[in-house]
Amino acid sequence: MSTDDTTTETSTDTETSCGASDAANADATDTATDADEGTSACGGSTSSSGSRCGSKKAATDERVGSTVADFDADPGRLVAVGLGPGQPEGMTQRARGALLEAEHVVGYTTYVDLLPEEVTESAEELYDTPMCGEVSRTEEAVDRALAGHDVAIVGSGDPNVYALAGLTLEILESKGASAEAVDFEVVPGVPAAQSCGARLGAPLVNDTVSISLSDHLTSMATIESRLHAVASEGFTVAIYNPWSRKRRENFRTCCEILLEHRAPETPVGVVHGAGRDDERVEVVELRELEALGETELVDMTTTIIVGNEETYVWDGRMVTPRGYESKYDY
Amino acid sequence: MSTDDTTTETSTDTETSCGASDAANADATDTATDADEGTSACGGSTSSSGSRCGSKKAATDERVGSTVADFDADPGRLVAVGLGPGQPEGMTQRARGALLEAEHVVGYTTYVDLLPEEVTESAEELYDTPMCGEVSRTEEAVDRALAGHDVAIVGSGDPNVYALAGLTLEILESKGASAEAVDFEVVPGVPAAQSCGARLGAPLVNDTVSISLSDHLTSMATIESRLHAVASEGFTVAIYNPWSRKRRENFRTCCEILLEHRAPETPVGVVHGAGRDDERVEVVELRELEALGETELVDMTTTIIVGNEETYVWDGRMVTPRGYESKYDY
Repeated sequence: MSTDDTTTETSTDTETSCGASDAANADATDTATDADEGTSACGGSTSSSGSRCGSKKAATDERVGSTVADFDADPGRLVAVGLGPGQPEGMTQRARGALLEAEHVVGYTTYVDLLPEEVTESAEELYDTPMCGEVSRTEEAVDRALAGHDVAIVGSGDPNVYALAGLTLEILESKGASAEAVDFEVVPGVPAAQSCGARLGAPLVNDTVSISLSDHLTSMATIESRLHAVASEGFTVAIYNPWSRKRRENFRTCCEILLEHRAPETPVGVVHGAGRDDERVEVVELRELEALGETELVDMTTTIIVGNEETYVWDGRMVTPRGYESKYDY
Repeated sequence: MSTDDTTTETSTDTETSCGASDAANADATDTATDADEGTSACGGSTSSSGSRCGSKKAATDERVGSTVADFDADPGRLVAVGLGPGQPEGMTQRARGALLEAEHVVGYTTYVDLLPEEVTESAEELYDTPMCGEVSRTEEAVDRALAGHDVAIVGSGDPNVYALAGLTLEILESKGASAEAVDFEVVPGVPAAQSCGARLGAPLVNDTVSISLSDHLTSMATIESRLHAVASEGFTVAIYNPWSRKRRENFRTCCEILLEHRAPETPVGVVHGAGRDDERVEVVELRELEALGETELVDMTTTIIVGNEETYVWDGRMVTPRGYESKYDY
């Protein structure tokens, strides 16, 4: 992995195509594949009080193919922290506290750049990689903890939503380490579905499903089967990773399946870059959704909320009633 | 509605049966029915720098059957704030800011009692009612906003998860008011599924459904149909409102449906009172779940996370792999 300026610039360039939603985390694996198949943009940059190259070199030496046996230090603590929508105000006090306690903070460049100054200043080291570096970045965090540092690995949204809690445990296991050894902890955050639901009003107040259209780790046949099952059962649906250059077709297929089971007038909320400077929110009808796949509104930073049969739009808000009116006189 | 000491004590008593999860909010409607059918425990208590009875009286006069036409003041702002797990550290900075800006804070007694001192001290008035008061409490918040006050209505978890965002909009609409008039805003919070998922490790990192077993606002036939649909499709399942005195049968039925589609060894995480003093966490096999319905572990404050076919338990954590291992060599 190179750590020269080009790499750093590359990581900066990818920022504009990233949003503050779990989706960006989830889609990182897609982009990793894109990178595997062509670019060599993957790389980490470490900033610390000492020399970047120096500290990066040490990190690299530790990381390559390492297992728990390669570390003789007492392990430090490892915490996976969900940042929520991405801006500091969307973070919980507990997340802030966990970041302030960490010696090393590891994350995707976009989110490390969004961390409040008090966090970036209190950390001994920040290690960030562009979107394509999800697995190596997580392995880096694990290795730094096994090497004796207290490490926080950060991601937007919640670590459990298509995100790094699972990958971190999988890597710990693959290294022959244990979760106990690094006192592994997950600090939950506000998922993209909730951030987007809030922007739209109250679209998710009944039974809801979250489903990713990324077929990188789940087959499209499985995704289609799941969409049929939930669309016919009246769940509201939060769609993550609706679109990427490599799978426009998945989005088209998803829209067709939804229209098989739901009225064309079904309200759909489309939120791009929730909580970010480039945030855009539109409420459309299901029949209009597919065409949006060809616009900038729908990309890997977009989360889509599909209403159920009862969802309606009132005063610019999406409302999925729970039936209070039928039970209470108000 | 009475506001004497007995009522206040009643609201305090109900606390022990309440948990810091969206589920408690959702189940409030059930308990409201319980109350409708027998007790007269519903009541609000208002505390302010002035006389409690005085301010409460005024509030009552405003509330009964009021519509937007009954208010001549310029409306204040109304914000629905999700507190997350319930303890102050689980709250986002944005939620904290919204509460500090509010003149009146309205909520379920259990959560109002959990608010940090800086919030309770900065508010001109706190209005809380016990669990059974969900609708009247929300109407009170709406009326106070229409009467010109800046009001925050609070609930645990996220306002979109079986919670108050929808009810607030439904009541605004029923009063002939508009969301714009009170500059209605939803501040998202960490849902119970995420708080519980974090305690369990990484059980929810793939497609997930949240479903409530409360048949107060959704028919049990619908709930059963939804359970069959998602259990057969490999979603991880977050079960809200798993149990109440009035619907032990729903829990039994849910366990039977899950066992029709999932192996008896499927890992299930059971989290009682997430983030609360009475928190209890157990990871069991699906075959053992039904029996837990007869224990104190499963009540209306419990959230249950059911793994999918690939979920496994490692080092005490639930892990639902996303398939990274099949795609990456680490």
